[in-house]
Amino acid sequence: MFVIKIGLLGLGTVGRGVYNIINNEKGYYFQTEDNAPQIVKILVTDTKKDRGSELDYSLLTTDPDDILLDNSIDIVVAVMGGSEPELKYVLRALNNKKHVVTANKQIISDHMALLLQTAKENNVSLMFEASVGGGIPIIDTMQQLLKINRINRVTGILNGTTNFILSQMSQHRASFVEALKTAQEMGFAEADPTADVMGFDVSRKLSILSSLAYNQIIQDDDIYKRGIVSIDAVDIEMTRQNGYVLKYVAQSFLKGNKYYTLVAPALIKESTELAVVNNEYNVIILDGNIIGEIKISGKGAGQNPTANAVVGDIIYILEQKAPIEADFSNPISNGGIDGFHGKYYFRFQIDNSQQFSAAFDCVDKYVEKKDVIYQRGNLFFFTEDIPSSTALKIEKEINKICENIFFARVIE
Amino acid sequence: MFVIKIGLLGLGTVGRGVYNIINNEKGYYFQTEDNAPQIVKILVTDTKKDRGSELDYSLLTTDPDDILLDNSIDIVVAVMGGSEPELKYVLRALNNKKHVVTANKQIISDHMALLLQTAKENNVSLMFEASVGGGIPIIDTMQQLLKINRINRVTGILNGTTNFILSQMSQHRASFVEALKTAQEMGFAEADPTADVMGFDVSRKLSILSSLAYNQIIQDDDIYKRGIVSIDAVDIEMTRQNGYVLKYVAQSFLKGNKYYTLVAPALIKESTELAVVNNEYNVIILDGNIIGEIKISGKGAGQNPTANAVVGDIIYILEQKAPIEADFSNPISNGGIDGFHGKYYFRFQIDNSQQFSAAFDCVDKYVEKKDVIYQRGNLFFFTEDIPSSTALKIEKEINKICENIFFARVIE
Repeated sequence: MFVIKIGLLGLGTVGRGVYNIINNEKGYYFQTEDNAPQIVKILVTDTKKDRGSELDYSLLTTDPDDILLDNSIDIVVAVMGGSEPELKYVLRALNNKKHVVTANKQIISDHMALLLQTAKENNVSLMFEASVGGGIPIIDTMQQLLKINRINRVTGILNGTTNFILSQMSQHRASFVEALKTAQEMGFAEADPTADVMGFDVSRKLSILSSLAYNQIIQDDDIYKRGIVSIDAVDIEMTRQNGYVLKYVAQSFLKGNKYYTLVAPALIKESTELAVVNNEYNVIILDGNIIGEIKISGKGAGQNPTANAVVGDIIYILEQKAPIEADFSNPISNGGIDGFHGKYYFRFQIDNSQQFSAAFDCVDKYVEKKDVIYQRGNLFFFTEDIPSSTALKIEKEINKICENIFFARVIE
Repeated sequence: MFVIKIGLLGLGTVGRGVYNIINNEKGYYFQTEDNAPQIVKILVTDTKKDRGSELDYSLLTTDPDDILLDNSIDIVVAVMGGSEPELKYVLRALNNKKHVVTANKQIISDHMALLLQTAKENNVSLMFEASVGGGIPIIDTMQQLLKINRINRVTGILNGTTNFILSQMSQHRASFVEALKTAQEMGFAEADPTADVMGFDVSRKLSILSSLAYNQIIQDDDIYKRGIVSIDAVDIEMTRQNGYVLKYVAQSFLKGNKYYTLVAPALIKESTELAVVNNEYNVIILDGNIIGEIKISGKGAGQNPTANAVVGDIIYILEQKAPIEADFSNPISNGGIDGFHGKYYFRFQIDNSQQFSAAFDCVDKYVEKKDVIYQRGNLFFFTEDIPSSTALKIEKEINKICENIFFARVIE
């Protein structure tokens, strides 16, 4: 009997989930198919480490060549994380005519064109469903939609850690630092949360989705991003009083020959579809010119949902469905954030009357109509509709006068 | 050059949408693929009728055999609606080794096992993405999930007409009759809305989803359903005051060797994922044992979204992906509505004090703790958690005493 053989690069959270679904009778496909694939080799850094009793330790190796040069291995599952050496291994696997399934958003975001081209040249598939939105089947859904539709807009809450933090702040009136600590204790945030709270993780995912949607490579570096670290409990309170929920939102859209991207905290109207997605859940909204708006939500991270996406890709390859083929020839360029505009919320700390009047003058210069609230040492503004570039100018000037600024756009 | 040929049965709303996507440069796939399929014949009842200038009238025929017996036609798209003659035509097409794509929920709901079996015997595909949820790719998503997950719960708002009516009642304080009239004027409701407002349309869709999810045919007739015609503006008002939104919800779940189904109006907590899906949008929530909860929403009906789903199925066949294969051998049986329970909302009209005390006694018999409100000739109850079968008993008894009853379960 011919059996498809899988080599696993990495046995962290996701790798372990993949192993469990395939071997420990968790996945239906692997119980019922006679020729279900088998994991035959696993790359780890330490073969002696205790990894529980449900693992076949004889599969472990510290030598990547045991997988990359083994001609009997058909599919390489790359779930190590980080850029190197995973990128190098994936390229070698593709060049050795092995299909590759990966959850690594960093290498996909930074090298999607090269990796897809290398896969195509070697007549194998490169799949990366797990790189965006955990268990949400967004890459597959987008590939299907794009056969009929043009997609001109992508909106999402793409990071479970920051959505969890904001949900905690909202539900328990916690401060940012307290909510981050809870997220770390519950395993939703890393010890070093920089990539999450500064937007790097979100912008990599937005870069992958936007590149596929608009047929042009949109690098992570091209995406304007702002973190959520300056959000305070008073912002949550003030936005709630005005009928909004604070969310960390990724947006991109295509207009004419320009694309526009933005990763930033945003005020979302209560009881709308973005506002009700909480905790570790992610959501992605796509606008197709024929199908209209379609929205998918599910767990954005976690062992089982992410491993589900990886194993789904493996089955996709087994069933010999069409691999991801993307065309990056669309002649579009980065329009920066100039395409975005809206009402803005500003909050900054006021320590004395000089600051107060200087800050007021600054805002007056740029915004005609505004609602102003002064409360417990903070000045709050809701502006009229202004370009996002104007909001950045205001921030820059206020920064010279006051401390502790937070601002966010209202997404209507 | 070899070209896949399509025969179209029916040129109503959906058929016209399919024609437009394929022929009038609306679909990306059909602009760029050299061997894009062509519609070569269309069955209509009247070839002379004016159907606009964008149609090739030479393709029209009134003889189904021009399609069903034409050996050059590879794919039959059945979008006539109703049970007969479409069922007969689809069976003949499959037996003549033609792939079939249909949007007909009635024939799929009533004959899914027979149709899939006939397709399998003839080594062709039967696809029906458009039969549930308009543009929402729910059948495909479920098929993918089921390869890894067991699905034990399906929840949805599956009918755009009734969701539009309830949204109108909620947003504009319209009566049921007024909202229905608006829905008819805007083309969201049929002249005869019986199938929508009595739940037949919803239960057919729930039967299709549940049969696929639980690996057993669950007939439309096996599904407990209650309509929404007795909802009054005061119910919308009272549910809103208590923090709920009234929605028409389809639910099924599997527990042990029994399945439970329910199509009924329900009170949904504000700011939750079911509550915020409005107007013609549908939503489907699936619970997978590995992936967790996944939710998809989009336009549940309409020419373009539904046609998008039909054309998506055509492309699926062209790309020779795995057809829908379902196993209906799971030994489960209908548990009725006994598996459902919850807080219930009751409202009935009280015309005199005899009715008042009789109704009160009746409710007292079944419910220990309750909140009671008497307002403008109506008595309102919120019960404690009771089995749904108890709610039906209360309804039956109250019906003997009072007129104009409405009741609905709170879905927490």
